[in-house]
Amino acid sequence: MNLRDEQDVTKIRAAIRAGSFTGHTSGMAPGKLQCNLAILPAEYALDFLRFCQRNPKPCPVVGVSETGDPMLPTLGRDIDIRTDVPRYRVFRDGVLSEEVNDINDLWRDDLVTVALGCSFTFENALMRADIPVRHIEDGVNVPMFRSNIPLVPAGPFRGDMVVTMRPIPEDLVTQAHDISAKYPQAHGAPIATGDPSQLGIADLSKPDYGDPVQVRAGEVPVYWACGVTPQNVLLDAKLPLCITHSPGHMLISDVAEDAETPIYQQ
Amino acid sequence: MNLRDEQDVTKIRAAIRAGSFTGHTSGMAPGKLQCNLAILPAEYALDFLRFCQRNPKPCPVVGVSETGDPMLPTLGRDIDIRTDVPRYRVFRDGVLSEEVNDINDLWRDDLVTVALGCSFTFENALMRADIPVRHIEDGVNVPMFRSNIPLVPAGPFRGDMVVTMRPIPEDLVTQAHDISAKYPQAHGAPIATGDPSQLGIADLSKPDYGDPVQVRAGEVPVYWACGVTPQNVLLDAKLPLCITHSPGHMLISDVAEDAETPIYQQ
Repeated sequence: MNLRDEQDVTKIRAAIRAGSFTGHTSGMAPGKLQCNLAILPAEYALDFLRFCQRNPKPCPVVGVSETGDPMLPTLGRDIDIRTDVPRYRVFRDGVLSEEVNDINDLWRDDLVTVALGCSFTFENALMRADIPVRHIEDGVNVPMFRSNIPLVPAGPFRGDMVVTMRPIPEDLVTQAHDISAKYPQAHGAPIATGDPSQLGIADLSKPDYGDPVQVRAGEVPVYWACGVTPQNVLLDAKLPLCITHSPGHMLISDVAEDAETPIYQQ
Repeated sequence: MNLRDEQDVTKIRAAIRAGSFTGHTSGMAPGKLQCNLAILPAEYALDFLRFCQRNPKPCPVVGVSETGDPMLPTLGRDIDIRTDVPRYRVFRDGVLSEEVNDINDLWRDDLVTVALGCSFTFENALMRADIPVRHIEDGVNVPMFRSNIPLVPAGPFRGDMVVTMRPIPEDLVTQAHDISAKYPQAHGAPIATGDPSQLGIADLSKPDYGDPVQVRAGEVPVYWACGVTPQNVLLDAKLPLCITHSPGHMLISDVAEDAETPIYQQ
């Protein structure tokens, strides 16, 4: 059986833990909350949680581990953050030092895992409502742009918001807004619609990250807060050590993506 | 002019800061988010934020101060937490030591303020939809009960959830659910409906806190997570110092109570 068609999250995470699956997780385990990750030393954790509270649209916190404990019981059964993500990025002093498939050798007693919601959740909901999601149709990564929207700082964490852009047919923009607004744990409602210059974006065909997609006649560019924001902010803070997932290689939780709260009932 | 009819939050907070208003804040500044408060030493703040993240219905975080900084810029203009709440309770080692109208003399460089959403927000929304709120009609405090619902622990913080009960006409229960669900920053949807024994409540006429209200024929008791929960949890943790608002004497913020995120744009 292709693991991409597997519905049992436990089996998917077991394959990831065993190292037999190291791909991206887009479209896997439909209905389950997938998470961005930030793993950082405890001395920075309070400031990082403050930063996320002050910037909830790019940084919706859905789980926080105990200090030094690699397990995430509030997000699912037997989730070990050292092994249960397909690919990780390790940053030292703000520079990418390695990309690995587990972090067993890097785990330390002072690390804290912060899990953040991701856009897969509202993209799934848009598609269920027959609202097209261009980059998924095209089989490419979502276009992402550094905006001029300042983040509310906390401690060493500051910067501007990164946004994603999805072209939406004009008559579906309100519906797309209302659907995504139902998922505050996955960036919520769009932060802007229309003219990219209002966000300081010069050219929609030249994203800062991801791939360009076409905005067709009758479509409006719609912008959402993006989970790359906290990753950039963490890098700019030049922490001695910081570990994230590799883009698209998410933690798949046992929590339903439409749950009122992201707390798994053991 | 009676301060209770004042619409300008700045004027209300100025009167509170000046010590000329020390009453409860129920019904004041309609449309503005009011907040429960927990002020605690920074060494406990990371665990307390973890606790709130794991128990978001009783503990919806809407603001976190810098360590040692009494200002709360993300909740409004010129909010000084030392003076801008009508009445405070000071707890030492888990015991109420004093009730005061400002905490200027108690402020320390290691204190962190955590502001939490409160039930006024969804009660206002229920009343706007002509759903009766019995304890407000009766002019008494909402009945609160210690439930048997265990909280997810974090560090020294643990215990059972405190719930409020409001009798709702049977044909309005679904609407009351859906309205309150729109306010995740104010306890969100009810946690239970009907038989109190499912929550370990022996007698609805004998609340643990607040005042009893009558459940009339055709009405159903509906239970919501309660902001007294984190206060009890803080007391049980027996922190050397912890300051809360006095019940009903809330911080009135500049944030709209129906804002998507509780972040004031300065």
